[in-house]
Amino acid sequence: MFSQPPHPSELTNLEIDSLGEATFNSNYFRNEASYTPDDSRILCYTKSHDIELCKELNIAEPTFELAGPRAKLFFNPTEVTCAIVSCGGLCPGLNDVIRAITLTSLWQYKVKKVYGFRYGYAGLGANPPEAPIELDPKIVDDIHHKGGTILGSSRGPQPEKVMVETLLKYKVDILFVIGGDGTLAGGYDLANEIKSQNLPISVIGVPKTIDNDIYCCKRTFGYSTAVSEATKAIFAAHTEAKAAVNGVGLVKLMGRDSGFIAAGATLSNNDVNMCLLPEVPFELEGKGGLLEKLEKRLKFKNHAVIVVAEGAGQNLFGDQDKKKDASGNVLHQDIGLFLEQKIKDYFKSINTEMSIKYIDPSYTIRSCPANADDSGFCTLLGENAVHAAMAGKTNMFVGNWNESLTHVPLAMTFKKRKKLSKDGQVLRTILRTTINVAKEDIQ
Amino acid sequence: MFSQPPHPSELTNLEIDSLGEATFNSNYFRNEASYTPDDSRILCYTKSHDIELCKELNIAEPTFELAGPRAKLFFNPTEVTCAIVSCGGLCPGLNDVIRAITLTSLWQYKVKKVYGFRYGYAGLGANPPEAPIELDPKIVDDIHHKGGTILGSSRGPQPEKVMVETLLKYKVDILFVIGGDGTLAGGYDLANEIKSQNLPISVIGVPKTIDNDIYCCKRTFGYSTAVSEATKAIFAAHTEAKAAVNGVGLVKLMGRDSGFIAAGATLSNNDVNMCLLPEVPFELEGKGGLLEKLEKRLKFKNHAVIVVAEGAGQNLFGDQDKKKDASGNVLHQDIGLFLEQKIKDYFKSINTEMSIKYIDPSYTIRSCPANADDSGFCTLLGENAVHAAMAGKTNMFVGNWNESLTHVPLAMTFKKRKKLSKDGQVLRTILRTTINVAKEDIQ
Amino acid sequence: MFSQPPHPSELTNLEIDSLGEATFNSNYFRNEASYTPDDSRILCYTKSHDIELCKELNIAEPTFELAGPRAKLFFNPTEVTCAIVSCGGLCPGLNDVIRAITLTSLWQYKVKKVYGFRYGYAGLGANPPEAPIELDPKIVDDIHHKGGTILGSSRGPQPEKVMVETLLKYKVDILFVIGGDGTLAGGYDLANEIKSQNLPISVIGVPKTIDNDIYCCKRTFGYSTAVSEATKAIFAAHTEAKAAVNGVGLVKLMGRDSGFIAAGATLSNNDVNMCLLPEVPFELEGKGGLLEKLEKRLKFKNHAVIVVAEGAGQNLFGDQDKKKDASGNVLHQDIGLFLEQKIKDYFKSINTEMSIKYIDPSYTIRSCPANADDSGFCTLLGENAVHAAMAGKTNMFVGNWNESLTHVPLAMTFKKRKKLSKDGQVLRTILRTTINVAKEDIQ
Amino acid sequence: MFSQPPHPSELTNLEIDSLGEATFNSNYFRNEASYTPDDSRILCYTKSHDIELCKELNIAEPTFELAGPRAKLFFNPTEVTCAIVSCGGLCPGLNDVIRAITLTSLWQYKVKKVYGFRYGYAGLGANPPEAPIELDPKIVDDIHHKGGTILGSSRGPQPEKVMVETLLKYKVDILFVIGGDGTLAGGYDLANEIKSQNLPISVIGVPKTIDNDIYCCKRTFGYSTAVSEATKAIFAAHTEAKAAVNGVGLVKLMGRDSGFIAAGATLSNNDVNMCLLPEVPFELEGKGGLLEKLEKRLKFKNHAVIVVAEGAGQNLFGDQDKKKDASGNVLHQDIGLFLEQKIKDYFKSINTEMSIKYIDPSYTIRSCPANADDSGFCTLLGENAVHAAMAGKTNMFVGNWNESLTHVPLAMTFKKRKKLSKDGQVLRTILRTTINVAKEDIQ
Repeated sequence: MFSQPPHPSELTNLEIDSLGEATFNSNYFRNEASYTPDDSRILCYTKSHDIELCKELNIAEPTFELAGPRAKLFFNPTEVTCAIVSCGGLCPGLNDVIRAITLTSLWQYKVKKVYGFRYGYAGLGANPPEAPIELDPKIVDDIHHKGGTILGSSRGPQPEKVMVETLLKYKVDILFVIGGDGTLAGGYDLANEIKSQNLPISVIGVPKTIDNDIYCCKRTFGYSTAVSEATKAIFAAHTEAKAAVNGVGLVKLMGRDSGFIAAGATLSNNDVNMCLLPEVPFELEGKGGLLEKLEKRLKFKNHAVIVVAEGAGQNLFGDQDKKKDASGNVLHQDIGLFLEQKIKDYFKSINTEMSIKYIDPSYTIRSCPANADDSGFCTLLGENAVHAAMAGKTNMFVGNWNESLTHVPLAMTFKKRKKLSKDGQVLRTILRTTINVAKEDIQ
Repeated sequence: MFSQPPHPSELTNLEIDSLGEATFNSNYFRNEASYTPDDSRILCYTKSHDIELCKELNIAEPTFELAGPRAKLFFNPTEVTCAIVSCGGLCPGLNDVIRAITLTSLWQYKVKKVYGFRYGYAGLGANPPEAPIELDPKIVDDIHHKGGTILGSSRGPQPEKVMVETLLKYKVDILFVIGGDGTLAGGYDLANEIKSQNLPISVIGVPKTIDNDIYCCKRTFGYSTAVSEATKAIFAAHTEAKAAVNGVGLVKLMGRDSGFIAAGATLSNNDVNMCLLPEVPFELEGKGGLLEKLEKRLKFKNHAVIVVAEGAGQNLFGDQDKKKDASGNVLHQDIGLFLEQKIKDYFKSINTEMSIKYIDPSYTIRSCPANADDSGFCTLLGENAVHAAMAGKTNMFVGNWNESLTHVPLAMTFKKRKKLSKDGQVLRTILRTTINVAKEDIQ
Repeated sequence: MFSQPPHPSELTNLEIDSLGEATFNSNYFRNEASYTPDDSRILCYTKSHDIELCKELNIAEPTFELAGPRAKLFFNPTEVTCAIVSCGGLCPGLNDVIRAITLTSLWQYKVKKVYGFRYGYAGLGANPPEAPIELDPKIVDDIHHKGGTILGSSRGPQPEKVMVETLLKYKVDILFVIGGDGTLAGGYDLANEIKSQNLPISVIGVPKTIDNDIYCCKRTFGYSTAVSEATKAIFAAHTEAKAAVNGVGLVKLMGRDSGFIAAGATLSNNDVNMCLLPEVPFELEGKGGLLEKLEKRLKFKNHAVIVVAEGAGQNLFGDQDKKKDASGNVLHQDIGLFLEQKIKDYFKSINTEMSIKYIDPSYTIRSCPANADDSGFCTLLGENAVHAAMAGKTNMFVGNWNESLTHVPLAMTFKKRKKLSKDGQVLRTILRTTINVAKEDIQ
Repeated sequence: MFSQPPHPSELTNLEIDSLGEATFNSNYFRNEASYTPDDSRILCYTKSHDIELCKELNIAEPTFELAGPRAKLFFNPTEVTCAIVSCGGLCPGLNDVIRAITLTSLWQYKVKKVYGFRYGYAGLGANPPEAPIELDPKIVDDIHHKGGTILGSSRGPQPEKVMVETLLKYKVDILFVIGGDGTLAGGYDLANEIKSQNLPISVIGVPKTIDNDIYCCKRTFGYSTAVSEATKAIFAAHTEAKAAVNGVGLVKLMGRDSGFIAAGATLSNNDVNMCLLPEVPFELEGKGGLLEKLEKRLKFKNHAVIVVAEGAGQNLFGDQDKKKDASGNVLHQDIGLFLEQKIKDYFKSINTEMSIKYIDPSYTIRSCPANADDSGFCTLLGENAVHAAMAGKTNMFVGNWNESLTHVPLAMTFKKRKKLSKDGQVLRTILRTTINVAKEDIQ
């Protein structure tokens, strides 16, 4: 999937190299071939003008450390206890990652034990809903063909000190944390607490966000599957719209701050006439507003399909106190229901019969099994998370850049959310091929 | 799909044979082999006690007339103009039926022309949204692989006299009406108006109800597909439920008065713990009520999946004025949103953390293409509708009984709605294999 | 799926009632409501002329015993050990049946134990590949979402005496045998051996044949799924055919002696131009032969899709010694490869460029999970198999007739194979809507 | 999909910039915002050592020209006639590309006419199977939901001079050529013939190879879909293998010289135990050979799944004269059938009962509709092909590099085939996570 985030252009190697400090010393050496040299790097910037900029500033081009099995290990594998925790909302591929971490740990490294903590960070808290389970090849045998997470999940953090106690109680050497930016921030705090206690426990993140909005990470697992599933909802909306006089199909897709799913699905299902993204502010009323353009469209073609990302059009709401969910994310006003009502009202006001069908497929999208593309990606993520941990890396997540898996400091996740690049080929194609409702400043 | 309605036991041949009166005299004779004799009939009742009853009452067993091409025709095929109209909500298979009627008319009977009226009965009204289109093999070539209806649809009737005028304007000899019981009732009124004007225009119905609740008709097209699609929503609900502490997945499925889709989906996806049907009244509160049983279930297994048909639990609402939709159907209170809130409130009141995910997949279910089973069924329905019309039948619909296609008077659709048989194997299996919340009188 | 076998018209109640003799006496009585009375029966024949015939001959209409939980039980459930064995080729729904039997036994009847014998009758033989496993709710939890059989399978019988020894060794009271006619014949022999040894062991069959050709049984599980999957292969064939100059797509489908899958898939995917069935002999060469008609079709439309059941056209092969597989089934000559070559040769001989793509999707069809329709059906089959066994029935299989589940003596499976009725609506529609290559006697 | 080809490291800007020479002068200028500057470039090499190498050699880093709409146009859009031709084997996404080219031409550039030549280059030859059709929005309306190509296809070239005559006859200004390396080579010859005749006709390629083996092109459309479909065949093979005693499932996948599909499917469906790739030679017999390792696997787990790319193991065949297909590709010996026989023979020779199921899903894979990921990709490819043409580019294809669309000279396709990088993360993960049968030199 061509998701094309903008360049993380304010990064320098100084920041990215904070990774170096977080690495434990290597104690074990394996004398085998085909490992990835520890100084393998790939360029962060791939456009010439960035390179020029780098040269001008006389700095080396920022690069990411490449993932892969290392020759030198920090841990003695056969004495290691691993643990996995999955947090936040469901995302296709969670079980694939859990399986890949479990099997890589047990088969490639012959670790002693792999625990699965239950129901997110709550399972590491003082009163866990359930005790951790021990994962083995039999348990994870076919979980990659299923949606959800066999470990369960929950939202929200736990006190770091309590979590460290739990890790010590179960003698955990490596904790794999699968989750979104809230979860990874929690992992960052946990790794720092561990560091302050001078404990040799590694914390490795695997970024999980169906929204695909992790900074410094070209792609997150589940996103490709989400786009596939989203196109089915659009298909339904299109079918419903075409069957009615002045039929409008309205589909709300996930995307709190970034419109990757909505954009990807629009590109993939060319039946979308309007695509509303958080990156592209729009007006509802007045000349050039959505309602006027929708009216024009219905006159032209008798039906229309609108895709709206959940974070789009937030400017249309007043400044009420914003609510937050248990993970601390601002709860957006429901733009889907809002648009449905506004559109109904508008056409009633101009005495035009019409029919709108609103589809919100969220749970169906996020709970399905990973598609082939995501499934293979998860295999790589899970395996390389274990390689990183065994080599003594910590306080980092397994990212990817230009089709290579990378090591990225957890500190990077605070920088900002990844968004659709405003001059990227994807967003530009959408602006050209759908009815453009963007305010002037982005056109 | 084993849908098992109760026996239409108050029927007698007198009623069913009203069909005879509605048949035009045959004017054309085709001297070819393998036609269905016009007196072929199949038994309505198939249980011995019915037979015994019939004998006791000294009446012949009621039977349905068998569908099939007839040797004698009323119309001279090459001079015939056919027309098709599709009404009401979308249903998988509409395009398959349209295609089968069109191709059978054009290829088997070489009729002059096939019109498709646009947007339901509105297309036959005084101010049609669009003029009818002429259907040909190219237009219908691959529509059977698509959901929706290429003709469009709408709800509600039109004055019969106006519709007759429209039929005369376009010189229509045969009108095929695809729709639910409201639509078929409209067809009945239309056929009677035609009769009173002594016009040789045939009205043939093809029953379309995703709810599968047409009386005297074992199965309606789209139902099998609906069950398949519904199981996907249940799958999502199950995945979400299992991933949370005390997770509940709640899925609302179509079924205004009859629970066929909910029952079929429950039987097909054995992850359902409670199945709430219009045929089985239940209580929410108190001992033995749904809430108490749900609490018990969560204590036992930590998660639960509930399927509710839209017409279930209507006894739980007060006696407010009932609203109706444009087709005249009573609009039920939304039992899904109601249950979601009641369940949340209950667990809050007993201080138990829980998480409920509510899924309403209606549009996705009804707008998808027909599955293979329905697609084949639609081929038979469409073809036999044309055979019936050509033979001079009118005021009837193409039904089916025990895997044979039948002719049924449109008058039969007023008798009552088909419901799940309370002592049928399907309903009994559901009561045994899920948590039974039925009030005592059905257990 | 409308499969419409011909009527098993030579049956009398004498034969069907052989079931009575095979029933053990009931020892236990359950005082609960809603059981199926033991004399519930449904009519075998449903056409009026059959009824007339019956009356004329002064015989009662043949009926099947209805399945369902009985009030009187032969076995004391809590002391019972059940066992399941699955035999022959894979078929969608095997795991659904295994799950339903296991859960009904354990939850509804609280039986002591449920064994699963491994790899077909071989698992009951003297040198089983593996020992039986004990089935519990955890093992069967989600197997209904998977294809194949968790027990494994194999072809061919084992000596009855040896199998009885194995049953005694594991103290098995009830053996559920899931398989095709060879397997059910083996069950028949086994039940007779048990009877001759005067042992209280029940043998209950669940008919499994993707071909849907079990006599006295309207439908077998897996058939609906097979048709769905088959339409995908036809879709591919159609796409390939249309993309080439004189493109021909040829799809071979299962159906050793009966063309149900080929017929069902043809009806469901109206892109098929020729459908070759075992029930409809055809000629290849000469006037009116397949090759001439194919040539004509290509001149008309530039592409063609042919579906051939594996048992079709066997008349075209010489009288070589027929080989048999391990189950004793005659191995047919490969009609698919044969046709592919003959068609290539023919068009070469008339100097016409063409392109043929041959698809044989067998393994993909039979190994996929059951669709929703089959899955629900399997739930009913498995549950009712347990009800029958507990009531003391033996030497029978769970069949179905006109949407009701029935008890049928295993002896019935020898009568003959079910085939497509030559005057049924399904076959007649196919003959009318595809290019008819039937020899004169069936047209 | 992470396909990770090796770096095209012998390229220099000299070669890539041959594109410059092939560009027509721009005659028209559009004064609008947000166009891609014509000197936008992205780096070819993304590993630091490449950069070092470049610096050392004192050459600028090779870059690809970025695709996108240009401000200056060569053609006056409203006077332009476009034409599209699709060649070679089917590939998911062909119709998506045809649709995107057609709609971009008609809607964004308002061109006069878009032709579709029928059945590949044959449609441009002296005796076309059919005349070209004119494409419009109605014809291409929903073709992106279908497999195949509405234009038809064929293999093999036509004389360039004849093709130029055809282009002149239909007054074609721009020809879009969708096809694999043979087709693109034909496009190269055609563009050169056009140049030698000094004609202002642009030839723009869109690379189509399900094998994903076009050099200088990270990804080709259809590949992601092919991997998805391939995993279904592997799933069937796994199910069959597990159901039998010593069951082996063998799946042959496309991949003439490069194992991308086999590798991607193996990574995506972790049930594969052996993955045989053209890039990794292996031995069959003897110690460390495939047969010995398979025997060991069956002793360990009783079943095995083998995936083999069609181009793998060609070293195992003798040096018979190699046949070629109409496109000039060497026809490989059938490694699938070969392995099936060798494996059967081996286990017979060691007296071990086993069962092998061979699946060759090729046609099903290549004829299905594009998945969401490919569909969106095709939208970008088709749109940018038109932008390139309008700007006066010719003798180039629309490639992509690191998630950006690029312009690449057709001359680049002769360089060599893209293959899996031997030290890439994908191939290395496969070697680590499946049974490695590679000869020593790659381990």
